[in-house]
Amino acid sequence: MPTIKFYVREGLLPAGELTSPNQASYAETHVQRLRLIRALLDVGGMPVADIREVIAAIDDSDQTVHQVLGAATKRMVPRCDREPSAGLEEARERIAELIAAHGWQTYSGGQTTEALVAALAALHELGHGAFDEVLDVYADAAERVAQADLEYVARYAAREELVERVAAGTVLGDAIFSALRRLAQVDASERIFGESP
Amino acid sequence: MPTIKFYVREGLLPAGELTSPNQASYAETHVQRLRLIRALLDVGGMPVADIREVIAAIDDSDQTVHQVLGAATKRMVPRCDREPSAGLEEARERIAELIAAHGWQTYSGGQTTEALVAALAALHELGHGAFDEVLDVYADAAERVAQADLEYVARYAAREELVERVAAGTVLGDAIFSALRRLAQVDASERIFGESP
Repeated sequence: MPTIKFYVREGLLPAGELTSPNQASYAETHVQRLRLIRALLDVGGMPVADIREVIAAIDDSDQTVHQVLGAATKRMVPRCDREPSAGLEEARERIAELIAAHGWQTYSGGQTTEALVAALAALHELGHGAFDEVLDVYADAAERVAQADLEYVARYAAREELVERVAAGTVLGDAIFSALRRLAQVDASERIFGESP
Repeated sequence: MPTIKFYVREGLLPAGELTSPNQASYAETHVQRLRLIRALLDVGGMPVADIREVIAAIDDSDQTVHQVLGAATKRMVPRCDREPSAGLEEARERIAELIAAHGWQTYSGGQTTEALVAALAALHELGHGAFDEVLDVYADAAERVAQADLEYVARYAAREELVERVAAGTVLGDAIFSALRRLAQVDASERIFGESP
């Protein structure tokens, strides 16, 4: 596990107050920040560079909560560079329809939408064209989860705490949902394929 | 983007049939396998070592579909090593309750359950004890998504194709759900925090 010095050097954690040439004291806010970094790094598997940008967004008090949430969640989407193609264009149209059908206000052409388009195009390319029907079930489930996420964080009034909680909740929430989906898949698979030879 | 030679050397892709000392011919199954590897690598962000194990599970025809699905999805959970602690024990009990309440048949003590426990414990440590209420919304949503996933793949009868599709669907499905959750979060955040100073 990386040391506190590493986090300070990487600009993730402010330096403690020097109490002697070889010793620094850390306040409770340091400890909480350290927990956040470790959660994003160890459990969320987020790269250090991305964590640095999330931390910077949390600390920039000039931004509204909504702006910071947009910046923080934008950083958490896997980068995806694909050559422009007819398949990508088709997937983009399908996603635009989906977003319109749900009435979601989003940043069009944003990084999240593009990652979504790339993943759907990859599925299409693998012969999963019929997955488009399943996509609506995903979108409904995502809407319910996001609503619960935001209702949960809306209980916190202080800006910094709120934003920090959303950053942790978004990354750890992904890990939690993935794991739950897998457990539920194993259960559904047992019911559907359990008797297969 | 890595070359085909790299995938062959890494044991991800069988070598093509040599048609001359410097040229190999690849069948349609090679092309499909290559698409799967690239999707897992580029869009899913899966490490090469994990992809190798998923491929091995797909190719091991001695296993039942249900067993292979278990093996393949188990590989896709982020590794998480945490020291045993009271927080971990508490999170483990909460997850056991959740699984029992949903009536899910799972491998107890499995890697997925442990990753889930670690993520929940990390949230608790960050002061998110109240997230436990939100967890039920997550579990309901995960159950719906997993049911749709399995109903979708159950349409395919041939074992290899089926297993390959589940592997792709699990990894890409995660990427798709994360992106959808973020889009829905931005929308919910706009409604809740859009007017914040």
